[in-house]
Order: sequence, then structure tokens, then C-alpha cells
Amino acid sequence: MTAGGTTMAAEIAEQPEAVARTLAALRPLRGELRRLAAGTRLVTFIARGSSDNAATYGRYLCEIHARRPASLAAPSVATHYRAEVDLGGALAVALSQSGETEEIVATLRWAADRGARTVAITNDPDSALVDAADLALVTVAGPELAVPATKTYTAQLAALTELVAALAPDDPSFDADQAEAPAAIEAMLASAPAAGHLAGELTSISSMVVSGRGFTYSTALELALKVKETCSLPAIGMSHADLEHGPIAVVGGDTPVLLVAPGTGPVLPGITALAHQVVARGSRAYGIGGDDAFAAACHATLPGPDLPEALAPLALIVPGQLLVEALARRLGLDPDSPRGLTKVTQTSGTMTRPGGS
Amino acid sequence: MTAGGTTMAAEIAEQPEAVARTLAALRPLRGELRRLAAGTRLVTFIARGSSDNAATYGRYLCEIHARRPASLAAPSVATHYRAEVDLGGALAVALSQSGETEEIVATLRWAADRGARTVAITNDPDSALVDAADLALVTVAGPELAVPATKTYTAQLAALTELVAALAPDDPSFDADQAEAPAAIEAMLASAPAAGHLAGELTSISSMVVSGRGFTYSTALELALKVKETCSLPAIGMSHADLEHGPIAVVGGDTPVLLVAPGTGPVLPGITALAHQVVARGSRAYGIGGDDAFAAACHATLPGPDLPEALAPLALIVPGQLLVEALARRLGLDPDSPRGLTKVTQTSGTMTRPGGS
Repeated sequence: MTAGGTTMAAEIAEQPEAVARTLAALRPLRGELRRLAAGTRLVTFIARGSSDNAATYGRYLCEIHARRPASLAAPSVATHYRAEVDLGGALAVALSQSGETEEIVATLRWAADRGARTVAITNDPDSALVDAADLALVTVAGPELAVPATKTYTAQLAALTELVAALAPDDPSFDADQAEAPAAIEAMLASAPAAGHLAGELTSISSMVVSGRGFTYSTALELALKVKETCSLPAIGMSHADLEHGPIAVVGGDTPVLLVAPGTGPVLPGITALAHQVVARGSRAYGIGGDDAFAAACHATLPGPDLPEALAPLALIVPGQLLVEALARRLGLDPDSPRGLTKVTQTSGTMTRPGGS
Repeated sequence: MTAGGTTMAAEIAEQPEAVARTLAALRPLRGELRRLAAGTRLVTFIARGSSDNAATYGRYLCEIHARRPASLAAPSVATHYRAEVDLGGALAVALSQSGETEEIVATLRWAADRGARTVAITNDPDSALVDAADLALVTVAGPELAVPATKTYTAQLAALTELVAALAPDDPSFDADQAEAPAAIEAMLASAPAAGHLAGELTSISSMVVSGRGFTYSTALELALKVKETCSLPAIGMSHADLEHGPIAVVGGDTPVLLVAPGTGPVLPGITALAHQVVARGSRAYGIGGDDAFAAACHATLPGPDLPEALAPLALIVPGQLLVEALARRLGLDPDSPRGLTKVTQTSGTMTRPGGS
């Protein structure tokens, strides 16, 4: 049992093993994945909720590391409009932790019917999503009991690094960085006391903006979702570039900004400049990751991992998860069972067949 | 001068003419556009801010009406990571009202260098974006003086209907519906008193969720952006499917939901079910558009246009713009000059060349 004493806290702490097991299980599939993807010219990710945030990471990694155009599918195009989109030459990758979210399974089947080759990323080897796909990347996070996804999310990110490694030419340096991820995640668990302290500073906020850019955009979206569902607080996740285009007007006394920054790389100066801009407007900027200049620009930061930017999201989410878990408890909420939520969410009006597990 | 007395209100009222002029100006380019797009297999939209919300509409319209896969580009992949993505066979469509947002111009040039054919959608025929594109669709909204984009946004939507009409086989019924859009927008202006009344009910909210699905997802995102930048209120724009996946936990007493619904079509039952779900949780659901059952499920609604779902976003945004303009005034803010914003926004840390107009 961890300091938090909750199932969510325990599952956060299981992430180094979940990611290590997932990488070990999927590495032998690289050749098969590469053959399946051969000749495809577009990768389209099909997901919802925290799986969609994982897909956002996959999209950047796919374009930047594998040089393959990538997109996030709009499931309603399949499930509601039943559009006859030509997906010849596309690799459709569906992500669902349970593998039973019906609209995701239906959208992957729709993609296959329209010419796409298909991959499933799920934590359940017996799920409907596995049946629907040409190839399944089954994550090995173990059963997740808290409603907020933590270890299944980082295991999805690990699966996405393996997917993109298969799409890209062999790169021993990428493989070496990937192998460092479990230890980097483990190191992040030491942030728990600092995250608890920072949570204490946030108990009176009325809303929050969470912002990142490039690779850390996915982390910001995932943290904003966690704040919404676990702390019942309105949190807006957005790219720092979008934040500057108008929405910075909402940042103020009761609405601080939480910025997620890689330790190095081309987006870091812009994120640091945004921290200065937020403080100049009289509001509070908090940070996760970054370098010394970033830390100096923020009111407080939680340290990030010693990983290259392309792999950093696997570990950068961890201090944020610890912060959200601690903040929920301080707000008198149960992080394991947020109000009104269930583990497998179906989208209303999508279809009528009873849901799976 | 309109009831609101602001420049924003006057520009909202100019939208029927802006859209009519834009459609008339672009219709003769359909053949040229069709030749440029011939053989392309993916449409990727490059945009930021309200132009990105217009692109979201374009993305659904492109996939559903023209059956062509579409995606929203991540500009940092080009401007920061300088990724060598293979864009052969792609049609890159950049949207910028000013045509001078540097990262958008740079991303379109990057796409052209990597094999894409390129289209610009902008309100300024002399802008850098026009220079960078193979073909320009210049909207004819006239000069826009208020900071929040209104008539340039609906003119972009009109340009997107023309783009997609060129990508799709000839469809006289789509063309006829398109021709009805200016009159439908005109009819929406009669909502001003009701929008003002609804604004009066919202003056004490601390934040807001704005939700739509499918075609109206773009309208929800644009309205949420308008609420953030014009009313300085945290507003979360999301698909109603995403809202059900956790974030519905934030909906409560001070955080009502504004739902944007088409008058007919496959997503309407789900949006109506969401309105019932919000009310059952003890919160308030307001609506724009929909049918009688939707209106009955909401606390109050503003009527939507008599247009098919695929064209409805051109007019559905108008009651929302009227609501935002009225709410800003009631909150003591100047809708024409929101705090801290300028008309042409550059993204910090992107590049160093001096900006355009």
C-alpha cells in the first residue's frame, strides 16, 4: 500500500512493472507488425477518453519518428454517418483499455471494411477489439480496479512506442531509450510528497488550464481529463500555442495554469515563455518537467524524467497522476470511484447491443 | 448599428452577406480545385484557434460528403520538430483569417516541400498564405475589426463547403442546400433578444461545458473558444461522446452545459439523451438547435436553422455568437477587445522573422 492508501495510488506505483512487462511482451511482434504496416501511407488512431490522449502521443511519435502521416479518427463518421471513406493504404490503430467500448470496436470494423489494415491496443487479450483486428498489441498492465486509468494508460504509451518502432527504420538509439522508460517511471514515484504538497496549494481553485506542446500535449490532455473526472474540477487541456490564441483570457486568480514541459527540445523555450507570460498576467504557473529556466519561471514544479523528449510522456504523466490523486483526497473525493463514472463507458445512442465487461 | 451596439454585434449581422459573397466568389474555382485535388488520398487541414474549429467542420464534411480521409495537422511537427513526413498524395489546406500567422504559413510551405498540393483559405488576397499555396480560396467577409472572429469564421465554413463540393462528385442537392445558407444565417439573427435573455441566466456561472457531436462538434468548439476569449470564462468544448467518458463529473451547479444540436440526423437522439442525463444530475442544460424533444429536455434553447445537418454549422454558430456577445456585455467586458488579445496572434518560440500585418 502506498502513501495515498488508495487503489489509484497503488496502481500508479505499479507502472514501472506494467510498462516493462508490456515492452517485453510486444517486442517479439515487431517483425509481424512491420509486415502488416508495409506500404501503408497513413496511420489513423481510433480511441476515446484517456485512450484518445494516448493516441495523441502516438500521432506525434508516428509523424516525427516514423515520418508517416497520422490522424485521430472521428468515430461518429463511422458509427453515426456510416461514411464510405476510402481507407485503402491506411493502418487503423484502435485503442481501448477494456477492448469492449462498442463504438471503438465498431469503428475498427468499419475501417477494415473500407480497406484499412487494423491493429488493436488493449489490456484484455479476450476482448472484442482483439477479434476485430488483424494484429493485437496486448498490454500487460494487469487488472485495473480504480476508475481513473493510470497503468493501462502508460502501458498504452509503451505499446505505441513499439508500434512506431516497427513503422520506422531500425534505430538502436530509440530502442535503448525505450528500455530506459521503466526506470524513469520508477524514479518519478519519488515525487509523491512534493505532489501532495502542491495539491495543498490547489484546493481552492475553481478551474485549471493544463498546457503542453508537441510530445507533451498528450500529457496535458490526459492530466486535464484526470482533473475533470477525478477531482470534478473544470480543467481545460490545450496546446500552449492554442492557449496564446485567445483562451489565455481565462487564466486568472482562481484558474492557474499547469504546464507540462520536456527536459530539452525545441518546444521548451516557448513553454518557458508562456510561464513568464502567465505570471506577468498576475496568475500562477505550475510546472511538471522542464529545465532550470522553466522551474525559475514557475511558482512551483515537480521534476520530470531523464528521458529524451520522444519518450518523456511515459514518465511525465506520473507526477501529474500523483498530484491528481492527492488533490482528489484533499477535496474530500474518492479517487478510486469518481462521481457518476463507471469503468467501461459506452456512448449513448451509438448502438443497442449489450456492452461487454 | 445593431441592438448590441458593438462592432462584434455589427459583424455578426453582416454574416449573411459575407457568406453569400464568398460562395459567389469561389464557385467559379470549382473546376480548378477539382483538378488540383485529383488523385490526392488525404486532406490535411492546417489551422489554429477559430480557424482550427472551422477546419474541424471541414474534416467531417470531407470524410462524410467527399469520402476522403481527413486530418488536422499538428503545426509543431513542422515548425519545431521539422519532421520529414511523406505527404505525397495529400492535399494540405491551410486556414488563417489574416493569412499572416507565421506558423500556419510555415507549416503550409513545409507540407508543399514534402509533396503535398496546397490550398489557402484566407480573408486577405495579398497575404503570405496566398503566396505559399497552389490555389487560394479567398473569403470575402470584408475587414473584421472586433477581435473575436465571427464573419471571417462563417466565411471560412462557406469556403470549406466549396472545397468539399469540388472533392466530391457533382451533387445538385448539396449545391442547392449551400445556396440556402445565407438566408438561413439571416433568419438566425432574429434570435438576438432570446440570446440576450439567456445571457442574463448565465451571468453567475463559474465555467461552462459546450458540447456537440459530428457536424456540430465544430460549432461547440468554436463557441467554447468564444466564451473563453470574449467572456474570460473557462469553457470546455468537447464531443458529447467524450463528455460521457469521465468529464461529465465537472457538470454541476455553477457549470452548466450548452448543447449544440442539428435539427435532424443520427447524432440528435444521443445529444437529447445527454441533455436528460445532465438534468438528472441536477445541473442545467441549455441548447442551440435540435427538435422539439431536444427543447423539452433542456431548460432553455435558442432555435437552429432550417438546413440539412451537413450545412447547419454555417448558421448554428450565429445564436451562439449572439449569446457570447450579450454575455460579455452583461459581465462588464468589451466584446470587441477582450483582455490581453490582439487580432493576429503569433505563437511564441516558433520563429524569429518579423510578423506580417
